[in-house]
Amino acid sequence: MHAVAVFPGTREVRLVDSPEPRPVTGSQVLLKVLEVGICGTDREIGAFEYGTPPPDSDHLILGHEALAKVVATGPDVTLVREGDLVVPTVRRPCPHARCHPCRAERQDFCVTGDFRERGIKAAHGFLQEWVVEEEGHLVVVPRQLSDVAVLVEPLSVAAKAAEQVQAIQRRLPWERARVRALALGAGPVGLLGAMSMVVNHFDTFVYSLEPAASERANLIRSFGATYVSGQDVPLGELGKKVGTFDIIYEAVGVSKVAFAAIDALGPNGLFIFTGIPAHGGPNPVDTDTLMRNIVLRNQLLLGTVNASRSAYELALRELEQAMFLFPQSVRALMTHRVPIQETPALLKGAGGIKQVVQLAS
Amino acid sequence: MHAVAVFPGTREVRLVDSPEPRPVTGSQVLLKVLEVGICGTDREIGAFEYGTPPPDSDHLILGHEALAKVVATGPDVTLVREGDLVVPTVRRPCPHARCHPCRAERQDFCVTGDFRERGIKAAHGFLQEWVVEEEGHLVVVPRQLSDVAVLVEPLSVAAKAAEQVQAIQRRLPWERARVRALALGAGPVGLLGAMSMVVNHFDTFVYSLEPAASERANLIRSFGATYVSGQDVPLGELGKKVGTFDIIYEAVGVSKVAFAAIDALGPNGLFIFTGIPAHGGPNPVDTDTLMRNIVLRNQLLLGTVNASRSAYELALRELEQAMFLFPQSVRALMTHRVPIQETPALLKGAGGIKQVVQLAS
Repeated sequence: MHAVAVFPGTREVRLVDSPEPRPVTGSQVLLKVLEVGICGTDREIGAFEYGTPPPDSDHLILGHEALAKVVATGPDVTLVREGDLVVPTVRRPCPHARCHPCRAERQDFCVTGDFRERGIKAAHGFLQEWVVEEEGHLVVVPRQLSDVAVLVEPLSVAAKAAEQVQAIQRRLPWERARVRALALGAGPVGLLGAMSMVVNHFDTFVYSLEPAASERANLIRSFGATYVSGQDVPLGELGKKVGTFDIIYEAVGVSKVAFAAIDALGPNGLFIFTGIPAHGGPNPVDTDTLMRNIVLRNQLLLGTVNASRSAYELALRELEQAMFLFPQSVRALMTHRVPIQETPALLKGAGGIKQVVQLAS
Repeated sequence: MHAVAVFPGTREVRLVDSPEPRPVTGSQVLLKVLEVGICGTDREIGAFEYGTPPPDSDHLILGHEALAKVVATGPDVTLVREGDLVVPTVRRPCPHARCHPCRAERQDFCVTGDFRERGIKAAHGFLQEWVVEEEGHLVVVPRQLSDVAVLVEPLSVAAKAAEQVQAIQRRLPWERARVRALALGAGPVGLLGAMSMVVNHFDTFVYSLEPAASERANLIRSFGATYVSGQDVPLGELGKKVGTFDIIYEAVGVSKVAFAAIDALGPNGLFIFTGIPAHGGPNPVDTDTLMRNIVLRNQLLLGTVNASRSAYELALRELEQAMFLFPQSVRALMTHRVPIQETPALLKGAGGIKQVVQLAS
């Protein structure tokens, strides 16, 4: 069967002919992969900056944002059934007894770093026609979501952030109705973050470099967020001109921009980093002011990346809300749908927002 | 009656003769002040770097770490009685209807910044022989704690941090028994922070510049913490040589040192800033690595400063634990007890750890 793989040894990205999976046993499920989304991490793996093949393989099959259909189930499967649409989670726990989070089946917060991630680290991904997966790693998706459910995985990062915010802000009197939230960046991560904030009923802003009259700005306004263009308001004046924010969701991946934006964080505010910047040199940062503000304003900075199963389930609910509230805006995120043969070209870059590889329908 | 006040207009710090308080009414309580601790904030106010007199006054009466005795109670008082030992809280809510935390009576997390703080900001402090206070701002202290209860206020900052840690770490599977915690700095804030960590059963370390053979290092070991001297382990190698930490409690107030220490934070770790650095120039910070680690290791940075009433009550319980587990170490913190006349000299600096002004006994 067809699959898309990277070969770090020979620095190739190409279609491979992978063996068909064997019949499923126990609690295994055979999946027919329908769609796989492409993101920045896939591009980094495709540029050999990131990604690790399984220990016994010279290549890594790509793909971690998947939508699939259940085709066959092992005799012990009880949670899914033939014909179900499912989204698989990405991370698999590390094997160490001392890792309490992995033993607690959280699929997140691993303390050893020896976790695997399908399509990213030490485990093949979903960019192949058939996949075998344990039923416990599958989230069932309602049929009405079929055309956008491939967004569940990227949305799960924002949903995890929403879970973290809810958990963390139990630390103080927290009035949800009054929350002013900012997505910093208008790429797929920023847009999905902003949509998640809107369906959480936050007063949502997006800040990016595109002009206020751009198509991207119109899309942002279409789902109820306010767009602020960097061409109109310099980042250093954002707090002063537009007001400070209770939550800032960083989605630019550039540490210099991220740290400059902390200045717009209000009292008791949360700043959420999602980007993983490349290694660069030191930046001049006014750490005195940063530290004073963190202390005197009771602020909190945190990172969020991979999500647990519970965040996928929350992402599913948020996607349903979004499809009720602004279906056209959600569909507008999907700018490319291409066959598997075009994946290597797609990995080199494409305009638009979210690129999806269609394997079956 | 005697009081110690700063006069920002004339840049004087001196004893004043303040009017005796009037008879108490309603839920007011008349307090005879027994002891007042002196901290870095008092020294900053004494150097005119900080501190604001009440709107109708040319001076600010100092003192926010107090222990007092109830001498008379208004007719509506129900929570305290004559003869009780009490510690008053410091912060008073802002008047704005829109400030949900202040309206929720948290005495913390004010969003307007218009709160008052006794002895610090827009309200006279406790460095005077008699004080009138609302009963709701008093925490009753058991008589057995009388010789160390003046530590409740400074300990409340660490107790607030402990409350925040407990609240925040509900965000993930958190095994309390395994927590490795570091106090960065061995001044009063660092030492009380370390004692709080020890009574929370964390595996506690203190890092500071004093040599490993110093009196301060011996004190730290006496209450069950491990001392790591900067003379033996450079800060940049702390994580590598001693291991990473689940919690780092910053108590140095120097942003350059604080940010360098974040490198020793482990996966899912919390970094707590308590210091309020003076304004300085920008520092070169490797924000790329900092941001990568925050994201990939699920780390969290937060600030803590003033505490709510609940944190005072927790500080009281922690102080009782500490007085059961290592009473000599707690008593060793109190290196100076001086009469009120010596306060202006004390504010200019004194060796030792905690200086206490004794007004009565």
